[in-house]
Amino acid sequence: MATFKIVTLPGDGIGPDIVREAVKVMNRVGEIYGHTFEITEKRMGGIAIDMDGTSLPQDTIDAALASDAVLLGAVGGPKWDHLTNGDRPEKGLLGIRGALKLYANLRPAVLYKQLQHTSPLKPEIIGEGLDILVVRELTGGMYFGEKANSPAFNPEKPDCWASDLEKYSVFEIERILRTGFEAARKRQKKLCCVHKANVLESSRLWRAVFERVKNEYPDIETSEMYVDNCAMQLVRNPRQFDVIVTSNIFGDILTDEASQVAGSIGMLASASLGAGKLGLYEPIHGSAPDIAGKNLANPLATILSVPMLFRYSLGLTKEAEAIEAAVNAVLDAGWRTGDIKSKDTPANKIVGTKEMGDLVVAAIK
Amino acid sequence: MATFKIVTLPGDGIGPDIVREAVKVMNRVGEIYGHTFEITEKRMGGIAIDMDGTSLPQDTIDAALASDAVLLGAVGGPKWDHLTNGDRPEKGLLGIRGALKLYANLRPAVLYKQLQHTSPLKPEIIGEGLDILVVRELTGGMYFGEKANSPAFNPEKPDCWASDLEKYSVFEIERILRTGFEAARKRQKKLCCVHKANVLESSRLWRAVFERVKNEYPDIETSEMYVDNCAMQLVRNPRQFDVIVTSNIFGDILTDEASQVAGSIGMLASASLGAGKLGLYEPIHGSAPDIAGKNLANPLATILSVPMLFRYSLGLTKEAEAIEAAVNAVLDAGWRTGDIKSKDTPANKIVGTKEMGDLVVAAIK
Ligand SMILES: CC(C)[C@H](C(=O)O)[C@@H](O)C(=O)O
Ligand SMILES: CC(C)[C@H](C(=O)O)[C@@H](O)C(=O)O
Repeated sequence: MATFKIVTLPGDGIGPDIVREAVKVMNRVGEIYGHTFEITEKRMGGIAIDMDGTSLPQDTIDAALASDAVLLGAVGGPKWDHLTNGDRPEKGLLGIRGALKLYANLRPAVLYKQLQHTSPLKPEIIGEGLDILVVRELTGGMYFGEKANSPAFNPEKPDCWASDLEKYSVFEIERILRTGFEAARKRQKKLCCVHKANVLESSRLWRAVFERVKNEYPDIETSEMYVDNCAMQLVRNPRQFDVIVTSNIFGDILTDEASQVAGSIGMLASASLGAGKLGLYEPIHGSAPDIAGKNLANPLATILSVPMLFRYSLGLTKEAEAIEAAVNAVLDAGWRTGDIKSKDTPANKIVGTKEMGDLVVAAIK
Repeated sequence: MATFKIVTLPGDGIGPDIVREAVKVMNRVGEIYGHTFEITEKRMGGIAIDMDGTSLPQDTIDAALASDAVLLGAVGGPKWDHLTNGDRPEKGLLGIRGALKLYANLRPAVLYKQLQHTSPLKPEIIGEGLDILVVRELTGGMYFGEKANSPAFNPEKPDCWASDLEKYSVFEIERILRTGFEAARKRQKKLCCVHKANVLESSRLWRAVFERVKNEYPDIETSEMYVDNCAMQLVRNPRQFDVIVTSNIFGDILTDEASQVAGSIGMLASASLGAGKLGLYEPIHGSAPDIAGKNLANPLATILSVPMLFRYSLGLTKEAEAIEAAVNAVLDAGWRTGDIKSKDTPANKIVGTKEMGDLVVAAIK
């Protein structure tokens, strides 16, 4: 019995559709388990640009900092692709990661047994299923490193240039590696550090820190891999991986690839964590503006962000399990949104966003 | 009837095994078509570190610069992973790319119809086959940008750091984009520019230059994609791509992924080109030290580098076609090296490196 402050950031496109369903699920857990979730909705992304003149209003940062956890839908859309003032919906997302110091992005790429057909890989490669966790550094590297432009920015002049700095400190590398080691401890105890130490100075520092820190985790089987090889191995033999830990930009690419390998991205959630308990939780998919408001989006990735939020920020383990069990029961019963249906799904088992949310709510025990 | 100067750089591991077969093939073409290939072997990579004290001897650079084309095997191996003087086999490769100003890396990812089983993707995704060309910028970006380290490099000190600069000029971007447009013109006339303009200044410059230059190629259907999405789309629906053009580091990752998607990397060749006709040609796979000298390596990727060399550096179109036809005939006849066999390949059709080379030589018309 407790009260928790949750900030929701529905964002753009299908964001409001899917966050609405996750909130229903959270409230149902509250009823059953006797918790109160005080939910405050704030603006970020395109909608904030439209209504507040900035992709990340101060009021949103303040509310997030004062909360126990933040649940995000998705941001962005073609509407805001060519703003002249330099703002963008994604700037809000990068900004809140920075403002909340969320340096660790945890992205599980899981293939649900009921949804094996959604993986593009052959059954012999998938085997019994996939369960990879990518731990991505989220507030460093070229995302946040110094950006520069030649004085008179003009894409017609051959000598005009632009740059981004991939810079990492031992401190930044060590803390994300430790997140990786700790995560591996709770799983299959295998950690693969992905870098490009044959080319990059920053990667050589990653490697050096990895080779030092791994001595403190003798129970973890460690390996290292170049990022190009990892991009290959994720397609060739993804089951070799348990936990992957890597930099911001490499993680951006590899998490998307891993999630696609694991089947429907409509099912995958993620957590962004810092040094304390505060975290930001979101589906890994985008804002899909083309289907916004049409009751077509799959809310499960957002709903499955809630168990991550419960575990990492609120310490509510059995409540997290209750949601996961409910989603599994709904899938076992054959219910599907359009994106995860197979050619054998009967038409009357294909449901919309709201109905899928209702089914999960009804299945929570 | 002509004389051409070719420099071979067998390199390390299986490099010598596979280059030997490609040279046999080249010489056979010379006999049939009346050309003379003056072949000079030089050292680069680990072997050069061992014998010359540097991964890229000046003598190798000079010979390469004086040649019509360079054929490379592969470099690297665990033996040279922990050198204390900062040299590495890969440094030789990066060095020769720079010294020869080979700014354009062309990597076709092709799935041979005889080898459909080698793709890890489901048949319904592969369809009739795959044929993607990735055009990767090869002498810019964080590979060659300024590298820096905090003064006292020490991976135990939290504030110690290392950095790499992702920097691109309009000049560098424009010339590689034009390589992409020209390549698309000879293919399906579709070009996708991959960047991360929602985060990186350098990518925003790529986008700006792309949006200008594309007006000069109204016959080419253009698109843009974020690199994370592209990593996903290559697994989800690779047939949407014809030519992809991108930066050095993104290209490194995406070419490896694309080649894995396309099936056996033992079949894939690449060309690195500059402003003139001189080029460097190599299989995309590595040096596989574990099978070096054992007559087990698949020489076809290196053999298939020769038609690229003939076309781009020597202008020998029908000779190029003769080699490709010979490889196809050998595959049609069912011959396979271990890496491309399927469970239906009869044991007496599985051959070694030398035998595969002999088969191709015998099939050249
Ligand atoms: C929207 C974009 C800035 C973001 C990123 O690159 O981090 C997204 O791709 C992600 O992975 O969360
Ligand atoms: C060996 C390495 C330096 C090289 C690169 O990263 O360019 C390789 O991966 C490649 O793609 O040719």
